[in-house]
Amino acid sequence: MGLFTKDIETMDDLFVHTLRDIYYAEQQIQKNLPKMIDKAADPKLKAGFEKHLEETKGHIERVEQVFDMHGVKAKAVDCPAIDGILKEADEVAGEVDDKEVLDAALIAAAQAVEHYEITRYGTLIAWAKQLGRNDCASVLEKNLKEEEATDKKLTELALGGVNRKAA
Amino acid sequence: MGLFTKDIETMDDLFVHTLRDIYYAEQQIQKNLPKMIDKAADPKLKAGFEKHLEETKGHIERVEQVFDMHGVKAKAVDCPAIDGILKEADEVAGEVDDKEVLDAALIAAAQAVEHYEITRYGTLIAWAKQLGRNDCASVLEKNLKEEEATDKKLTELALGGVNRKAA
Repeated sequence: MGLFTKDIETMDDLFVHTLRDIYYAEQQIQKNLPKMIDKAADPKLKAGFEKHLEETKGHIERVEQVFDMHGVKAKAVDCPAIDGILKEADEVAGEVDDKEVLDAALIAAAQAVEHYEITRYGTLIAWAKQLGRNDCASVLEKNLKEEEATDKKLTELALGGVNRKAA
Repeated sequence: MGLFTKDIETMDDLFVHTLRDIYYAEQQIQKNLPKMIDKAADPKLKAGFEKHLEETKGHIERVEQVFDMHGVKAKAVDCPAIDGILKEADEVAGEVDDKEVLDAALIAAAQAVEHYEITRYGTLIAWAKQLGRNDCASVLEKNLKEEEATDKKLTELALGGVNRKAA
């Protein structure tokens, strides 16, 4: 983003900017998930993170596909929001020693990540439709559905035993 | 948080830490909402932000009530996640000149804030229940319900005219 010029003039510019934001976010999540896989003690949680790492690679490809469909270069822009969410996840995890409490903390951190992605994809889909790009919206909806399913699965793991063991 | 010691030993510590995190987040949101009210052009959006500023003051009081019920001092801890989300909101808003495109960007930014709060309150409620503190969970549920209603209202504003005017 330019520091001295206003780079976003139209709704289309805003859509592309936000697509670049989620592109960066997905890449950072891909980099961070291996750390979360390492830290997770519960086998189901570890497997869930592993599955989500594979899905995240697919999300990056779909975002690249949307850049392509929309005729703009795939490019990431800094996203202070995901940087902050991941920094906080790291800091909190660093404060916890007990493996079962750590699992509960990891689920909370991962759900904050999922909710960020859910809100951004929700916005991008609405804007794509408004811009007459239902084709782009359909691709982004696939990512949104997987993020929502991951969030739901994390809640199930938390309520299905992780929180009880941690308490 | 301590830099050289692991301060979170139990699930109860994790609950209190996360309560301090959302306490900080709500305070930062209270500080930031007046800027968003100033920037919003759509009268319904402006009124929505004004209403949410009043609600946010109530959320802070409810979080203080939960600290009190739980027998710990009301204290905030730095929350890099909300700092990042609000920084990104500021940066994007600073890039947009057109008032109608700015309204669409403000809604997206506000929904990222709401989703952060929704995930944190969801986690806190589940942990409170696990710790046998249904009384704390009930108070936190009031905040969660208002955050969810605000998120829904923002979607209605976006789809009800703001995105169309911006496009």
